[in-house]
Amino acid sequence: MNKIRVGVVGLGRLGFTHAENITSTKNASLIAVCSHSEEELKKAKEKLGVTNCFTDIKKMVETIDLDAVILVSPSNFHAEQSIYCLKKGLHVFCEKPLATTIDACKEVEKIVAENPSKVFMLGFMRRYDPSYLYAKKCIDEGKIGRPILFRGYSVDPNSAIEGALKYAAHSPGQFIDMAVHDFDLARWFLKAEPTSIYAIGGCYLHQEYKQYDDGDNVSALLKFENEAMAFIFAGRTATHGYNVETEIVGTHATLRIGSVPQKNLVEILDKEGVRKECSQSFNERFDVAFKNEIQEFIACIVEERYPEISAHDGTQASYIAEMATESFKNNILINL
Amino acid sequence: MNKIRVGVVGLGRLGFTHAENITSTKNASLIAVCSHSEEELKKAKEKLGVTNCFTDIKKMVETIDLDAVILVSPSNFHAEQSIYCLKKGLHVFCEKPLATTIDACKEVEKIVAENPSKVFMLGFMRRYDPSYLYAKKCIDEGKIGRPILFRGYSVDPNSAIEGALKYAAHSPGQFIDMAVHDFDLARWFLKAEPTSIYAIGGCYLHQEYKQYDDGDNVSALLKFENEAMAFIFAGRTATHGYNVETEIVGTHATLRIGSVPQKNLVEILDKEGVRKECSQSFNERFDVAFKNEIQEFIACIVEERYPEISAHDGTQASYIAEMATESFKNNILINL
Amino acid sequence: MNKIRVGVVGLGRLGFTHAENITSTKNASLIAVCSHSEEELKKAKEKLGVTNCFTDIKKMVETIDLDAVILVSPSNFHAEQSIYCLKKGLHVFCEKPLATTIDACKEVEKIVAENPSKVFMLGFMRRYDPSYLYAKKCIDEGKIGRPILFRGYSVDPNSAIEGALKYAAHSPGQFIDMAVHDFDLARWFLKAEPTSIYAIGGCYLHQEYKQYDDGDNVSALLKFENEAMAFIFAGRTATHGYNVETEIVGTHATLRIGSVPQKNLVEILDKEGVRKECSQSFNERFDVAFKNEIQEFIACIVEERYPEISAHDGTQASYIAEMATESFKNNILINL
Amino acid sequence: MNKIRVGVVGLGRLGFTHAENITSTKNASLIAVCSHSEEELKKAKEKLGVTNCFTDIKKMVETIDLDAVILVSPSNFHAEQSIYCLKKGLHVFCEKPLATTIDACKEVEKIVAENPSKVFMLGFMRRYDPSYLYAKKCIDEGKIGRPILFRGYSVDPNSAIEGALKYAAHSPGQFIDMAVHDFDLARWFLKAEPTSIYAIGGCYLHQEYKQYDDGDNVSALLKFENEAMAFIFAGRTATHGYNVETEIVGTHATLRIGSVPQKNLVEILDKEGVRKECSQSFNERFDVAFKNEIQEFIACIVEERYPEISAHDGTQASYIAEMATESFKNNILINL
Repeated sequence: MNKIRVGVVGLGRLGFTHAENITSTKNASLIAVCSHSEEELKKAKEKLGVTNCFTDIKKMVETIDLDAVILVSPSNFHAEQSIYCLKKGLHVFCEKPLATTIDACKEVEKIVAENPSKVFMLGFMRRYDPSYLYAKKCIDEGKIGRPILFRGYSVDPNSAIEGALKYAAHSPGQFIDMAVHDFDLARWFLKAEPTSIYAIGGCYLHQEYKQYDDGDNVSALLKFENEAMAFIFAGRTATHGYNVETEIVGTHATLRIGSVPQKNLVEILDKEGVRKECSQSFNERFDVAFKNEIQEFIACIVEERYPEISAHDGTQASYIAEMATESFKNNILINL
Repeated sequence: MNKIRVGVVGLGRLGFTHAENITSTKNASLIAVCSHSEEELKKAKEKLGVTNCFTDIKKMVETIDLDAVILVSPSNFHAEQSIYCLKKGLHVFCEKPLATTIDACKEVEKIVAENPSKVFMLGFMRRYDPSYLYAKKCIDEGKIGRPILFRGYSVDPNSAIEGALKYAAHSPGQFIDMAVHDFDLARWFLKAEPTSIYAIGGCYLHQEYKQYDDGDNVSALLKFENEAMAFIFAGRTATHGYNVETEIVGTHATLRIGSVPQKNLVEILDKEGVRKECSQSFNERFDVAFKNEIQEFIACIVEERYPEISAHDGTQASYIAEMATESFKNNILINL
Repeated sequence: MNKIRVGVVGLGRLGFTHAENITSTKNASLIAVCSHSEEELKKAKEKLGVTNCFTDIKKMVETIDLDAVILVSPSNFHAEQSIYCLKKGLHVFCEKPLATTIDACKEVEKIVAENPSKVFMLGFMRRYDPSYLYAKKCIDEGKIGRPILFRGYSVDPNSAIEGALKYAAHSPGQFIDMAVHDFDLARWFLKAEPTSIYAIGGCYLHQEYKQYDDGDNVSALLKFENEAMAFIFAGRTATHGYNVETEIVGTHATLRIGSVPQKNLVEILDKEGVRKECSQSFNERFDVAFKNEIQEFIACIVEERYPEISAHDGTQASYIAEMATESFKNNILINL
Repeated sequence: MNKIRVGVVGLGRLGFTHAENITSTKNASLIAVCSHSEEELKKAKEKLGVTNCFTDIKKMVETIDLDAVILVSPSNFHAEQSIYCLKKGLHVFCEKPLATTIDACKEVEKIVAENPSKVFMLGFMRRYDPSYLYAKKCIDEGKIGRPILFRGYSVDPNSAIEGALKYAAHSPGQFIDMAVHDFDLARWFLKAEPTSIYAIGGCYLHQEYKQYDDGDNVSALLKFENEAMAFIFAGRTATHGYNVETEIVGTHATLRIGSVPQKNLVEILDKEGVRKECSQSFNERFDVAFKNEIQEFIACIVEERYPEISAHDGTQASYIAEMATESFKNNILINL
């Protein structure tokens, strides 16, 4: 079998990870990379041995014979590049969010529907983390009974705030940037759509977010059509690590995922007490999930099937995030 | 020094505990008990050696020379009995809630203010639990920085549902019955009053609550005047035990209290995995807190000082609970 | 019923605790105290309201009408004082160890046997800790199956080393001072006597112990007559707290007690990771156990029954500790 | 660069894992496999796409152009096959133990020394587990101070007992089969050799081991030349999972690795309490370690350097295991 020829667009921290993961994925070859940064291209050339380096996605797609692209560009390019690549006959893996407006999300959905022979996958990597997969299996087997409450935390370590603040002016806000994963997980675990949302938040440590009508920590309460509740908390000021924690309370059992975001199985007993050190970044915490999702993308192409996550999932998560932002900015309850 | 002479009104599970705790409290004597149940009075006589047994509080107060009463009667009697006893010149320890209406709460507040020589204390026992006290100390010392989020869970084990359902017709609802402790804790830890509240919930296991316009699990999202957020979850269907869990996320650190409601320090490794068994009731979990609060009540009387918890705290917690109930019943956002 | 009139001998940290616990024990009165320290006597007078203060045990016993004594004097007085008090017709609670030589232990056993109407109890308080009691119940009910391995850790925090070093010249060694509790627990849980022992150790931090042919950390491996194994570790250099941890591995399940010696139910998430702070002393960890054992002592007197722990248990624990010391000092395997 | 051409000998559970890992290892190609089982060869052909299949190692080595072999054959073939392959000019990765006699171990050491251009690596995979690597780094950086005690548990789940019993007649005993990893870890962490050993054990559940003068659970206490102590426990009857747990107590801090052998980050709250499910096999627990060690083997070949684990490490671990077995069988203390 010929290997799937892959091009990666965007070589930031996550872009490089995806590119690297392609090199150890069965049935895939890293053929080309694209970035505005000469430094990143140089690094990819040296570390990953890729020779086809571009600064323009169109040039890459037109020059090189590719089967698939992985889009890890800034959020505002996701929709446009997805549409372009799908139309050029490429399979597309797109990082979250699907787009920065709901209209753009729906446009992507439309193009995906028009190209049924192409695999389109969205980077909600948590769905491919072994612990989340295990929890999903438990839920689907009925082990927790009827779901009552979904609780999702997504908090970045404060040590990463400098980068976040630099990007803040162009950010669609914490709900879309950080909480979109939780909106997706809530829909996945609860198997329902929300019917109401109320969101609040504030600038507890970084007043810089005020000028963008945003907070450094925000939260939302949602009700779903099946009566299930969801509480989402997202922020940027955790001191212990990269805090992604999920809980699903059911009538038979409750599951908690990552309530201690431990970096490994070492427990330290010293003058601070008995403690576990924590993961400090998404790369560290979701290392395996990132590998798994790329393998699933390639496997879908090879086996001619669709991934579980559809473009519509992307639209819905973005829509909820947008409504949360709206609720937060205007202090209003929104019935969806 | 003469011992403080105490009468206990109501001898249900918690009433008996309070009566028993009086017998081992320094400077206090259990002099009389009052209950509608002959069986409970008999038990108190046999186990606690109390000989002055009454079925009518007024008869008890008028017949016996008492310094103080502990009111553990049904919620709808709290206000009336508190006022009566204060007016009779007694120190009063009253179980939560202060009253079932805000007007009644305020009436108690007024009578308390008119009797400055009498100690009035409300049974928010969590404030006297060693773990909660330790957390409060950490917060007051600035160790968590600025508070961002308070999260409070109060879930009874489903094994206790029969008793709860029997009482449901007379219950003011889960927010007042269960969540009132969390509303008090949120005010205590956050040192602020809420400015908005949105509450939801449903009948996930016990449809019986529908007829009372209540749910078996409910939750609320609150914003406070200092920008802090609070998420409260209360319910009646926990399978693992009596689940009282509190988290305070701050800009410097996060504290979690009781995230594993372990019954003791034993860890079991067997075919279920590595596990801890859980406390099954408030008596088991808050054993020490109940002792501590009664000791504090007596100490306040002896040392002629006021307890930290004021009648006003009771009014506020009840008010928030009432607003949460209102929000839940009408699916509206309430700005306070 | 008349209250049991109790005198406490020795008012160090633990002596004061026992005296204080008597004041809140049903059916008991603290009548007299005895100590060589005027300061300690003064503290007892002020804090516990005891007026009969002595510096000589004999004077106390002869002057005051007592029913029972609690002996918390230095180890080398235990046997002599126990015998004296038993012969004077008093019930005796004696702190561990029973005596500093096996001959003295046996002499106490003899006098105890000759005074069957008197309660004699030894202060192996761990047997009265709720977690240990729960584990014992599980074992007795067959829940762990056949016991394979007992592991016992008893390590004092290094912060307490100064006091320990002061006392080192008169200490019978770590096995008798520290590990005797574990030898007792091993016999209790395994329901068997050891048949062989090999002990090692060293001075890892405090070379001062070398001059006494002792170590600051020591350990022993034992085989029991029912084939069960035991590993005991005792030391004085823990940095995280007072580390008393016990494990019983069985064919059906394994139990661990106190593997995190947490001081309360608060979990802290900060730059050190996710952690629990630890108990720093035996008083803090075994607070409830100390209360329980004194209550049991008084209850035995009142109900005219014997406590579970016999003088013979004290002899056996001391004997094993002595053999461990012997093995350690000579690097030999000892078959018992 | 040409890829390292690898042949795998032995395709049992671990052999297949190694073969599979070669297929995703940078700079390596799986060229040939060798097994006595037609079924295993068929599986390798189908799943891994390897076409050169042999039932005889010599035929494989003589027919196919290989750079390296991975030996996962039964323990009694390790030494002979290692020597044969080294002499044929191949790099060798050999599963533990190095050999079943110390003489054979030393013979391998000699041949390894005579072939300095060939990489020889032993499969002590725990040294390549991220948690063990992290602990080692902490120790080497002095974070735990001076090591006092090493505690190592290696217990297989009882669910795997059938396979173990089948193999029991040919087994050199639990110390060599199970505990050899811990003897290696103890040397690695403590950086010293043992000077005395005493070992005990028994048949607690499976009397079948009696006929082989072995136990189903065994333990050993060791003293090292630097005064450090080690307690090793190995067995075959765990009910909660594959229990590999390691503790290193130091004067500054204590490290614990895998004290809860959790299969993932999911915590379950249900009628059993709050629990984590456990890994059930070495493949599950050491998945990453197995990948890492194979990558290190290939990297050593490519970069012309030696792995950290030497043949001498294999000899020493086997020697200690043999002395433990000797001590266990004769109930004697052995000074090394």
